[in-house]
Amino acid sequence: MSKSNFKPYTDYKEYPVDEMRKRAKSFYEDMKRRRAVRDVSDRTVPREIIEDCLRRAGTAPNGANKQPWHFAVVSDGSGKKEIRQAAEEEQEFYKNRATDEWLKALAPLGTDASKPFLEEAPYLIAIFQKSYVIKEGDEKETFYYVKESVGIATGMLITAIHNAGLASLTHTPGPWDF
Amino acid sequence: MSKSNFKPYTDYKEYPVDEMRKRAKSFYEDMKRRRAVRDVSDRTVPREIIEDCLRRAGTAPNGANKQPWHFAVVSDGSGKKEIRQAAEEEQEFYKNRATDEWLKALAPLGTDASKPFLEEAPYLIAIFQKSYVIKEGDEKETFYYVKESVGIATGMLITAIHNAGLASLTHTPGPWDF
Repeated sequence: MSKSNFKPYTDYKEYPVDEMRKRAKSFYEDMKRRRAVRDVSDRTVPREIIEDCLRRAGTAPNGANKQPWHFAVVSDGSGKKEIRQAAEEEQEFYKNRATDEWLKALAPLGTDASKPFLEEAPYLIAIFQKSYVIKEGDEKETFYYVKESVGIATGMLITAIHNAGLASLTHTPGPWDF
Repeated sequence: MSKSNFKPYTDYKEYPVDEMRKRAKSFYEDMKRRRAVRDVSDRTVPREIIEDCLRRAGTAPNGANKQPWHFAVVSDGSGKKEIRQAAEEEQEFYKNRATDEWLKALAPLGTDASKPFLEEAPYLIAIFQKSYVIKEGDEKETFYYVKESVGIATGMLITAIHNAGLASLTHTPGPWDF
């Protein structure tokens, strides 16, 4: 491997094997409790908790370290309402676009196009993937392994939210282009 | 929202807000230490630790709960050797396929086509995404949001490995079709 001018990795923390074993097991036991929650509380949550969870997502490994993601936190009523309205256009998905097989797969989950939780939840986090950016002077900068990187960061975000003691719902939008 | 025959979510653990705050912050501080490590030790690690980390990845939210992933753990010498040889065909990527812009983005990371760590590391975990399966009777079952789901599970896996006190390297293969 070619040499690079990196700083030594002094932050590494090694645990004795027995502690590793315990940590792996208890982390699994704790995460096993996580569920996607569609019945949410409207109680407020300090924004700094959400920000720390997002910072944590931002530590994810990603293609060439270009961090091809954008997280937008929406907490105001009118923003949430707008997103709910756009999301409820999923009705179109449930009525027309979804295959019978897909609808059958979703049936036991009891999901449908009605999304009141999008207005009730204290925070919505919109996750965008960036395929490229246009820099000054119209120069295009390409990003790599975008879907993989954003997925990994999202996995870390969901973990952080659960770890903080909050519930989350991963919602993949239907035809959103607003 | 339509009703479903789910069990009540009794496993939810709520923390007082101050503890939430602390948990979010310390989780971020801890994950900030994570680095992709290319200089690995060949010391053994009990397989159950890896298995618990994988179980944890398997709790990830995913499209219609079809768990469209397959994790393969390789720890034997000949398996690792075979993977290294295939991976080093990335030389072709560095020589011909990568754009100049891509190579420039990778330069500060000091990566190249030589991958001795693939034989040195005690475990390689190959992550596959399943777009569909062919069931008995030649029936095809489709999976949904495959890349997103596998990405989230991978983010959870990397977190679990770090939390256990182990280092990992996320490696996205070049032209692998073996």
